[in-house]
Amino acid sequence: MPLPPEHTPTDVRMRGFTNRATVEATLAWIDSATPVFEHLDTEVIRASNAANRILAEEVTSCVDVPSFARSMMDGFALRSEETYGASPYNRLPFKVIGTCLPGVPYSGLIEPGQAVRIMTGAPLPAGADAVLPVENTELDGETMLSLGEVSSGKHVGTIGEDIRNGDVVLHKGRQLRPQDIGVISSIGVGHLSVIRRPRVRILITGNELLPSGTVPRGYQIADANGPMLAALTERDGGDVIFPGIVRDEPDSIRQALLEPADIILVSGGSSVGQEDFAPKLLAELGEVAIHGIAMRPSSPTGMGRLQGRLVFLLPGNPVSCLCAYDFFAGRAIRAMGGRSRDWPYRRVVVRLARKLVSTVGRVDYARVQVHGNEAIPMAIGGASILSSTTRSDGFVIVPSDSEGFPEGTEVEVFLY
Amino acid sequence: MPLPPEHTPTDVRMRGFTNRATVEATLAWIDSATPVFEHLDTEVIRASNAANRILAEEVTSCVDVPSFARSMMDGFALRSEETYGASPYNRLPFKVIGTCLPGVPYSGLIEPGQAVRIMTGAPLPAGADAVLPVENTELDGETMLSLGEVSSGKHVGTIGEDIRNGDVVLHKGRQLRPQDIGVISSIGVGHLSVIRRPRVRILITGNELLPSGTVPRGYQIADANGPMLAALTERDGGDVIFPGIVRDEPDSIRQALLEPADIILVSGGSSVGQEDFAPKLLAELGEVAIHGIAMRPSSPTGMGRLQGRLVFLLPGNPVSCLCAYDFFAGRAIRAMGGRSRDWPYRRVVVRLARKLVSTVGRVDYARVQVHGNEAIPMAIGGASILSSTTRSDGFVIVPSDSEGFPEGTEVEVFLY
Repeated sequence: MPLPPEHTPTDVRMRGFTNRATVEATLAWIDSATPVFEHLDTEVIRASNAANRILAEEVTSCVDVPSFARSMMDGFALRSEETYGASPYNRLPFKVIGTCLPGVPYSGLIEPGQAVRIMTGAPLPAGADAVLPVENTELDGETMLSLGEVSSGKHVGTIGEDIRNGDVVLHKGRQLRPQDIGVISSIGVGHLSVIRRPRVRILITGNELLPSGTVPRGYQIADANGPMLAALTERDGGDVIFPGIVRDEPDSIRQALLEPADIILVSGGSSVGQEDFAPKLLAELGEVAIHGIAMRPSSPTGMGRLQGRLVFLLPGNPVSCLCAYDFFAGRAIRAMGGRSRDWPYRRVVVRLARKLVSTVGRVDYARVQVHGNEAIPMAIGGASILSSTTRSDGFVIVPSDSEGFPEGTEVEVFLY
Repeated sequence: MPLPPEHTPTDVRMRGFTNRATVEATLAWIDSATPVFEHLDTEVIRASNAANRILAEEVTSCVDVPSFARSMMDGFALRSEETYGASPYNRLPFKVIGTCLPGVPYSGLIEPGQAVRIMTGAPLPAGADAVLPVENTELDGETMLSLGEVSSGKHVGTIGEDIRNGDVVLHKGRQLRPQDIGVISSIGVGHLSVIRRPRVRILITGNELLPSGTVPRGYQIADANGPMLAALTERDGGDVIFPGIVRDEPDSIRQALLEPADIILVSGGSSVGQEDFAPKLLAELGEVAIHGIAMRPSSPTGMGRLQGRLVFLLPGNPVSCLCAYDFFAGRAIRAMGGRSRDWPYRRVVVRLARKLVSTVGRVDYARVQVHGNEAIPMAIGGASILSSTTRSDGFVIVPSDSEGFPEGTEVEVFLY
């Protein structure tokens, strides 16, 4: 028998989100709440292991590179003024009195009428002020014939032309490239102070979960989110702490939330149902800043702070978990570690092969396949279909003020 | 006293390259000479360590995911036909006989007039064929009132809807993404067969060189290329073997060339001067396919094969070495390891703030700084100025049929 509408309240333990934050507001909160990398400790590591790490202090050279004048060509070191007037029709002779190789200087002084055979990179001998390239010479026994002129300083690399003693070679906060490692090596720096990687604790809960690598059985499923989040965190420069699945009960989750970490990624039990302990514990021990976001998937995502840690409440559904990581947690991990906030995905601009439908008022993370110059939206709504992200090549973002894009629209795809 | 032109031959030991290969022809040679990844051995590793590795065999699921019908919403499991006619003005009552959580099924059978409270991800109880979302219900004690209808199968995830038993989940040759690791975990696969990384031996020679991390002194310089090539190789998926600087004499270099490796990167002594032993040894022990390329910098680059190894002769000048790695060696390492041949650099299209001058007949690798929407060519000619690559943000390629680009041209920049 039906009852009047005003009679029975909705079960609050199972209600949905009443007030969803916009994606924009959420990103603004993350950017304001994420401590900049200077807040992390530093560690000293070997320069040869420092690629991709973030410099904690500027690197200043205490040497000139090169530290001696060197030849930039294979040829002959000589006194440039003595080549004046030389041409193929007026060959001027020089006596070749020695050879000068990289690391093996010529020890004597070049006198008028003399030249020293010199290789690229070799130190310029005393008395010489230029290198005549081998192409402009001919040899006759121990006599070199100059077929052209050189001016003073020509083909000579000067002291400090690459780096000067006292130059700041690289600045604090720099993410080190392979060539930076080369430069650091060239000035004799063997160790560097870099920012410690942010410690990212992965807290997976769910009594239905078996550890990854276990064949699912009965009503249990194997954990997909833990290993996925570990790989994502690793990619974004985080130091992964993933001790395994945590029992889905308040005491275990509380204890895990209080373990050492800079950022905690909680997956499972993070929505608003009666078995969702993480948001309540975060509110009790710290602050829930955002819970519920106007986007699809990942709308149950939440985040907050707990005694100096950033905590992300990620949905248990694997696609939602990936999307929420991409949008929110990854940004914080990259920023805290001193990396660019931007997505580490390559972008291509292609045309939509079919229309892409969305709803005004929420941001959509739409998986697509890319074939040639076309993006094909994947017809999968379910946030639980993780295999949709392995079959897709990337994603398109539909902003919240859009109902989607018609077929043929040029869209930017972020490639996985 | 000048001598007649026909009298004296050029010193052949110091002549330049007589016949430069085009960049195109060089890339074609690399692609034909690089064994495809199937030629490498495989190794079995833990799935959780497999991100970015290349699958050596297809991964087939031996389970359905999910392996049971599950709820896709928080709500009530019931017999859908019993909701027919329900609306906010015609509330139909159901007796709530239990609760069903993820991993904790309801063991009884749902009879007519009954419902079971169910959470997202929980197994659907026997007797039920649909889930009525909590938003469409009200509770009155142990009675749930349906405010709407659901059709059979609604909000129920079916067995195998993500992955079916027997499905090929990932194909051979796939470079594994974080979400792939998630999918692999969800089907209970704990270990994977992946392609062994190509072993890349870095062979640095030069009697003027000190090991990286040593402060340069006298006429010696610290090795920049070894650590830079190691970081580049690592980035591109190679397994770095870099035992340190090799003595610049034929016997030491010969021995190093014959050590185990898939690819050898030689830097130093790889041009055509009298002290350049590597090309002669490569010709003696194997085959020099290309030596001298129409490009700037890096024109002295060479390459060939030696008893199953690919050997790259890279210039000793650090910028040339980086450029030759980017153009040639990196391509081979990525391809041999099963990765994309493409540069792993993000691209942006920006306008040239100044003209960029090149010469017809050679490809130019021009370093630029990027400020906003502008690229500023760096006014540095010297291939020895490695710090130019740390001050630049990326590079622009000027093709060999171009004299360069005028100011304002839109160019594609590959960002370091």
